[in-house]
Amino acid sequence: MDKRKIILDCDPGHDDAIAIILAAARPELEILGITTVSGNAEIEKTTNNALKVCDLVSLKDVVVSKGASEPLIRVRETAPGIHGDSGLDGPELPDPSRSWSDEHGSDTIIRLVKESNEPVTILPTGPLTNVALALTKAPEIKNNIEEIVLMGGGTFGNWTPTAEFNIWADPEAAKKVFDSGVPIAVMGLDITHQALATKEVIEQVNKIDNNVARIVGELLVFFASTYKEMFDFDGAPVHDVLTVAYCVAPELFKMKDVNITVETKGEFTAGTTLVDLHGVTGREVNAKFGLELDVEGFWKLMIDALKKY
Amino acid sequence: MDKRKIILDCDPGHDDAIAIILAAARPELEILGITTVSGNAEIEKTTNNALKVCDLVSLKDVVVSKGASEPLIRVRETAPGIHGDSGLDGPELPDPSRSWSDEHGSDTIIRLVKESNEPVTILPTGPLTNVALALTKAPEIKNNIEEIVLMGGGTFGNWTPTAEFNIWADPEAAKKVFDSGVPIAVMGLDITHQALATKEVIEQVNKIDNNVARIVGELLVFFASTYKEMFDFDGAPVHDVLTVAYCVAPELFKMKDVNITVETKGEFTAGTTLVDLHGVTGREVNAKFGLELDVEGFWKLMIDALKKY
Amino acid sequence: MDKRKIILDCDPGHDDAIAIILAAARPELEILGITTVSGNAEIEKTTNNALKVCDLVSLKDVVVSKGASEPLIRVRETAPGIHGDSGLDGPELPDPSRSWSDEHGSDTIIRLVKESNEPVTILPTGPLTNVALALTKAPEIKNNIEEIVLMGGGTFGNWTPTAEFNIWADPEAAKKVFDSGVPIAVMGLDITHQALATKEVIEQVNKIDNNVARIVGELLVFFASTYKEMFDFDGAPVHDVLTVAYCVAPELFKMKDVNITVETKGEFTAGTTLVDLHGVTGREVNAKFGLELDVEGFWKLMIDALKKY
Amino acid sequence: MDKRKIILDCDPGHDDAIAIILAAARPELEILGITTVSGNAEIEKTTNNALKVCDLVSLKDVVVSKGASEPLIRVRETAPGIHGDSGLDGPELPDPSRSWSDEHGSDTIIRLVKESNEPVTILPTGPLTNVALALTKAPEIKNNIEEIVLMGGGTFGNWTPTAEFNIWADPEAAKKVFDSGVPIAVMGLDITHQALATKEVIEQVNKIDNNVARIVGELLVFFASTYKEMFDFDGAPVHDVLTVAYCVAPELFKMKDVNITVETKGEFTAGTTLVDLHGVTGREVNAKFGLELDVEGFWKLMIDALKKY
Ligand SMILES: [Ca+2]
Ligand SMILES: [Ca+2]
Ligand SMILES: [Ca+2]
Ligand SMILES: [Ca+2]
Repeated sequence: MDKRKIILDCDPGHDDAIAIILAAARPELEILGITTVSGNAEIEKTTNNALKVCDLVSLKDVVVSKGASEPLIRVRETAPGIHGDSGLDGPELPDPSRSWSDEHGSDTIIRLVKESNEPVTILPTGPLTNVALALTKAPEIKNNIEEIVLMGGGTFGNWTPTAEFNIWADPEAAKKVFDSGVPIAVMGLDITHQALATKEVIEQVNKIDNNVARIVGELLVFFASTYKEMFDFDGAPVHDVLTVAYCVAPELFKMKDVNITVETKGEFTAGTTLVDLHGVTGREVNAKFGLELDVEGFWKLMIDALKKY
Repeated sequence: MDKRKIILDCDPGHDDAIAIILAAARPELEILGITTVSGNAEIEKTTNNALKVCDLVSLKDVVVSKGASEPLIRVRETAPGIHGDSGLDGPELPDPSRSWSDEHGSDTIIRLVKESNEPVTILPTGPLTNVALALTKAPEIKNNIEEIVLMGGGTFGNWTPTAEFNIWADPEAAKKVFDSGVPIAVMGLDITHQALATKEVIEQVNKIDNNVARIVGELLVFFASTYKEMFDFDGAPVHDVLTVAYCVAPELFKMKDVNITVETKGEFTAGTTLVDLHGVTGREVNAKFGLELDVEGFWKLMIDALKKY
Repeated sequence: MDKRKIILDCDPGHDDAIAIILAAARPELEILGITTVSGNAEIEKTTNNALKVCDLVSLKDVVVSKGASEPLIRVRETAPGIHGDSGLDGPELPDPSRSWSDEHGSDTIIRLVKESNEPVTILPTGPLTNVALALTKAPEIKNNIEEIVLMGGGTFGNWTPTAEFNIWADPEAAKKVFDSGVPIAVMGLDITHQALATKEVIEQVNKIDNNVARIVGELLVFFASTYKEMFDFDGAPVHDVLTVAYCVAPELFKMKDVNITVETKGEFTAGTTLVDLHGVTGREVNAKFGLELDVEGFWKLMIDALKKY
Repeated sequence: MDKRKIILDCDPGHDDAIAIILAAARPELEILGITTVSGNAEIEKTTNNALKVCDLVSLKDVVVSKGASEPLIRVRETAPGIHGDSGLDGPELPDPSRSWSDEHGSDTIIRLVKESNEPVTILPTGPLTNVALALTKAPEIKNNIEEIVLMGGGTFGNWTPTAEFNIWADPEAAKKVFDSGVPIAVMGLDITHQALATKEVIEQVNKIDNNVARIVGELLVFFASTYKEMFDFDGAPVHDVLTVAYCVAPELFKMKDVNITVETKGEFTAGTTLVDLHGVTGREVNAKFGLELDVEGFWKLMIDALKKY
């Protein structure tokens, strides 16, 4: 079978961690590399978290590269209120068995895309700083990118009334990506809020008798507790996991071709994505936007994956 | 009975027209004056439309003042695709029996508020240019304004992906109003889209045997046709009517205390309202925001009002 | 002789006061009215100052109307560090012998322009709020405005590195004026800084033996002291006076046809005027911009005027 | 003698070329590397031009790395009207004897700064994209940067009324640099326009009997012709050369400690530098700004350097 070659560009982060776990379990995917970015927590923390998760799922040969420690031009802000101080609070995970690569995350993206004999799909699940750096340094890699499947944005916000955290944290980087001409699929809040890890979901996870599932259960419990506190949600939406699920089972997703533009200049709206669902702007389609998730199918995919560990 | 004193500041417009019709029918309200603004159509058209509707419902003694013909600083844009070239396409209404006042709409607002021995409620259902002019020229009127109940904004847009037409058409004026400190109730798209004049609603209207109801029926049919074409809606949302209904029957409305800020500076987001539903901005509450409408109760109110003609 | 009909729209202010004094002395000008605006000081202060100056120069029949007490949408800021707490610190002037008109300044502008059988020249020497209000309420007055000769802007700033106070205090109003299509002549900092009331100038003024000259001398001494402190200037530039001088003796001014645009959206640059001296923007000429003043001729004009009192 | 270690980050460009020529002639400087950026011309052209100039002055061992081919987020714009289609029109220079390094310009900056046992001075004379990329990827290099001496900005503009080309071409990159905390010295238009290569200067250059001087003469003649056409200048200002001269002979420069901020959000002012000469902003000093050049001393330095070839 021809595997889809992917790069996970992430800031683990509870949902990033689960995204890695899902990706590692699926035979359709070949993880070329994992790059990290400052976002949910500072770069050393997100990189260490990525390494810990690699150990958990025995991803021993996949390069893990530390990427941008700050946004292109803005001041760095993290999200300890959601992901805890470590960026991955909840379960106890052993210290990583190895260190990150010497190569900068953005350079790893450039190298892996250039080296691949087939087009590569990039799955950014944090701020888009690394991808923007890669596109700025080596715009020629666009020719060997199959798709960028990213978690970010939406028709409403979570970090501000109109902006989602990943886009808000580095709007200029996001603008670079959305203006790049590369095919983009967007898992925004509209669809990721449908993937709520409810009590019932957590129960199902907890019934699976292996270490990975146990850790995922603990991640979901912690994640749910902060989402309850900050947004009064019954369960946490596992945002980032949808990017991986979409690569594996696109039939679970109802997508719409739209134009998406990123505001970088507003007094209050920087980081807002303008998702032109009704074609009112006259701007050209540049993205597929996630509208509706087959929720049951999605959780079945996840549970099945966990059972394989 | 103590009537609530109101000023209708509007740009008829199908839904503005129906708002006037509802207000004129309700004994709880005393219409002090009607002021018009450029919005759905040019100022002469919206003013003529207001006068025609006054004739229709025999509002003979209410002053009708022509207001701003253009936004504070932006270029004027109208909405013929939604309301037709006249701003009130559909029914044939006779030419108005009288002309507008010599007084500018913004001055009528100032005068009526100052003259009133009780606080006045202003119901803006078009761009907020007149209200902003009044507040700039005579900030002291804030002391005798009970509330501004306006149609505008929302957590999503119709004229751009994030901006609603009334706010988008004059963002600077809207900012002035939202920053004014006056109590504000907002009927945004979130709640006005719940007030859809469906086929069933139109049927009910058409069963009422009087001229006003017949005209309302024709307005709804035309309005539905453009909403079908532009937004693929099954029926038109009668946005502006909710401001009047709220003054008459607030129990039909689930409102939430929030901060609302208007973006005036964005490259793509000017006219966007930031409705802080989850208190993420730390900005102080300055508005009640309409979340949920008792749809059945609303249409009952409307139908009952039409039956009185 | 045909007198040029002018309206002085001002925020006295030392240089505004001297501008009134010069205008009242010149037979070429007919002052139709004086309107005031919040700027150098709060509106009650600037209006009282205007009335005091009218008494000083016996302008008994000229209407004085209080205008805008705050900018179109921004928060009001005044300049006590430059003009003292009263807006006109320095000389002791008697309380005004009369009060201001009941008419709002912006309405006085509209009325006077409409009533005049000849085109009127408006001389704004404060923030442009009143003029913007007048243009928004009654755009038809553009047809009877000969020219707007304003003090404001320049290729550099004084209140911020790139913005001059009058434009910075109400950028939206300024944008309205510059975008209006009315002929505009601009006395910006480039030329007003050439009109420095040096020690030599003040000596000349002090040699004139009349009350008006004595007051002007005291105004210049106070003004020089704050300019020394804030900007380390040797003497104060009598900015606003140039607008009147230009109407009387345009041959003293080297002007250039340029496009001037006002920034309203920048993070740091709101209120900046973009004066396109080299035609690099491709935008159409909309203003005459003051480049060079015949300094000697200007002071001669001023001294001669003072001698007439 | 201890040489000052420098990196030339440039977009040759006539004045960049002359800057390289001056730097190569001066014993006080050790050129660690030359990095190129898109600016005056596309990246391949500016890099080839840099290589040609290296050949001209026998800089055989200095690494030349091709850097960013486009700005961080904006669309690339070049300046053929000033520098001709090649970016270095005028003299005929042989094709370069070698090619550029495989390393990206921004990575060369990072590597050279990290490898150096003494702090390094960076001299950016084009858009600041490479430096911003380096600072984003490796913020730790700040600790080994002695100073960034850049050509850019000023209290007025050349590419727009308020923005200078280098800053305007990549305002986000410029903001990154000015906000970085690294010591910065700025050669803005205020001082570079004092370094005019007049006819007299060109005559002096042409009297020097060597190939390098001949080429410089031809560069100046071409450069003067476009400056005459576009800005009606009598001679071209050799902007970039001042950065090198400042490193060699700071006593020729009157500098002022100021805060400089870059506007990235304005509708018309993006790329404007706000140079706070009078301390009106209250923002902290972050740069030395060039006010006055010892013009005679500067040209003597240049002529002497050319004589050494
Ligand atoms: Ca994430
Ligand atoms: Ca309306
Ligand atoms: Ca003034
Ligand atoms: Ca250059």
